[in-house]
Amino acid sequence: MKHVKAYGTENPNAQLQPLTIERREVLDDDVDIDILYCGVCHSDIHSAHNDWGGSKYPLVPGHEIIGSVTQVGTAVKSFKIGDLVGVGCMVDSCQDCSSCAEDLEQYCENGMVGTYNGKDKHTGKQTFGGYSTNIVVREKFVLRIPENLDTKAVAPLLCAGITTFSPLNHWKIKKGDKVGVIGLGGLGHMGIKFAHAMGAETIMITTSPNKAESAKDLGADDVLISNDNEAMKKHRGTFDFLLNTVPVKHDLNPYISLLKRDATMVLVGAIEPLEPMNGGQIILGRKRIAGSLIGGIKETQEMLDFCGKHNIVSDIEMITMQEINTAFKRVTSNDVKYRFVIDMKSLK
Amino acid sequence: MKHVKAYGTENPNAQLQPLTIERREVLDDDVDIDILYCGVCHSDIHSAHNDWGGSKYPLVPGHEIIGSVTQVGTAVKSFKIGDLVGVGCMVDSCQDCSSCAEDLEQYCENGMVGTYNGKDKHTGKQTFGGYSTNIVVREKFVLRIPENLDTKAVAPLLCAGITTFSPLNHWKIKKGDKVGVIGLGGLGHMGIKFAHAMGAETIMITTSPNKAESAKDLGADDVLISNDNEAMKKHRGTFDFLLNTVPVKHDLNPYISLLKRDATMVLVGAIEPLEPMNGGQIILGRKRIAGSLIGGIKETQEMLDFCGKHNIVSDIEMITMQEINTAFKRVTSNDVKYRFVIDMKSLK
Repeated sequence: MKHVKAYGTENPNAQLQPLTIERREVLDDDVDIDILYCGVCHSDIHSAHNDWGGSKYPLVPGHEIIGSVTQVGTAVKSFKIGDLVGVGCMVDSCQDCSSCAEDLEQYCENGMVGTYNGKDKHTGKQTFGGYSTNIVVREKFVLRIPENLDTKAVAPLLCAGITTFSPLNHWKIKKGDKVGVIGLGGLGHMGIKFAHAMGAETIMITTSPNKAESAKDLGADDVLISNDNEAMKKHRGTFDFLLNTVPVKHDLNPYISLLKRDATMVLVGAIEPLEPMNGGQIILGRKRIAGSLIGGIKETQEMLDFCGKHNIVSDIEMITMQEINTAFKRVTSNDVKYRFVIDMKSLK
Repeated sequence: MKHVKAYGTENPNAQLQPLTIERREVLDDDVDIDILYCGVCHSDIHSAHNDWGGSKYPLVPGHEIIGSVTQVGTAVKSFKIGDLVGVGCMVDSCQDCSSCAEDLEQYCENGMVGTYNGKDKHTGKQTFGGYSTNIVVREKFVLRIPENLDTKAVAPLLCAGITTFSPLNHWKIKKGDKVGVIGLGGLGHMGIKFAHAMGAETIMITTSPNKAESAKDLGADDVLISNDNEAMKKHRGTFDFLLNTVPVKHDLNPYISLLKRDATMVLVGAIEPLEPMNGGQIILGRKRIAGSLIGGIKETQEMLDFCGKHNIVSDIEMITMQEINTAFKRVTSNDVKYRFVIDMKSLK
């Protein structure tokens, strides 16, 4: 084990502060990564505060990691020292179940290992995330980063990016489809960029009229204000697909009415109990509600390559590691366009 | 117009009683049908009592109709006098929208015409259902009944049958799939028969242990008692498909946990607001909730032909027209195995 610098919290009510953590020694198929940038995901805050239960302390968040390879194990084939790489929400899985066999490690039937607050398969100890100077990760879970992109703005692709790319990709969104992206935050802004790049007529659906211009700058063809009943009525039954990024309890019914027959709304944000859904709304039109969780490693690489090809990155605001507690507060009050990224030099 | 005998109600609080109604004259593409049998659907009761709003009076229920052709219009090609035919929940649609073009008249974008409580496209008057001696229906909406089946037990196939066949058919249930049918009533008992006939491992899911034997007689391979937590845990994540026939507000969450990754639960019964669903339950496993409404005319004919081939009919209890008010009470208290069918001779 080696000791490295990190930022984390000792209990759910404390602020984040400097910590020293242990990383495992580099195994045969491991890659050691010097972390350059780490995105700040809303899940980091929920986990730090134990909002979902299950948090273990000390907890070091961060699963939107960009870094440079500093060491590789003897069996590593795909990476060499100096490579620009990324790590997302997972660092391991069983590699043995039917989900892993289909490159869907995020649904590993034996439980994927989270980048933080997971259980390391080798040491049995807790995993620590990217708010740190380095991380040791199994080769299979390391992503290659296209060199043509603004590196620091790539970080949020590892969670916000794949979370929105995967459903659009899985449900085969294509040119000519009318796609609604519900909610304009870290996830929603990526949803707009991807849907637009896939050739869809992309409509931003939001409660905030003042987000209209920003949404169009991101690639939205139009903006639909979801509490404008007349506008909602005009778009009723016209959407081929809805990507719902709303991260809190909400009412699905107004959105369901926007779907065409046989069309799907995919939830990627709200993991809590939702407002009651009307059965009749999905029965009349054979409509579908589905969920989607990040994406597998293979698809995450596809997403990064897609971003390289289409020149897509996140819109970010850079912070130092020391500014993290302020950043957490600003994320909680939706005061960020659209993702904070920590410059990890500030921790060294 | 010609006057015919029927049974219906003049207001939401009255019992059903004899009425005289008008049927339109036979148009060029119409078929006049002497009604032999009519099934009693739970919707008949909801409509008679205006439980869903929108009921107009006098109201004559009945959309599970079997009869014999007595007259055909000059342009009718598919039917001749004496043919055994059926009529389900629809008697017309626009035939012009994209749903009608795909043989999905039940989702007609201009509104299909219900067999009762609909608006006749020719007369502009209200449609009256099968609790009557005869009915005049556009050829396109008349079904051919396989001659090898017990005719009176075919009646419920026109609603309960197609409502359960359509989702199993649309989601391509096949040999080897593990299918759960939730709720054992008029719909559920048909769901078991169809899933079994399609070769699926068919599990009846019910709150009532005393329904276990009946379910197995209908073709269920096993019975899962949904409030037995241990049993539910054993089946967690193992179902390829769930057909949810529960007709009232209920909690979807325990059933969602039974689904495999990427698997679908289809609602066909509950049109009201459901208990709050947990977003996380569909996100973790990319699960899907969908709805399904009866079936198109083409698929209804396929269903009838499938029944002819596999010798499938409903389990029924015969009543006279005069016993309808008692039958309504018994349906409401789930005291029927599994469908009442009215012998329409009793009205003549």
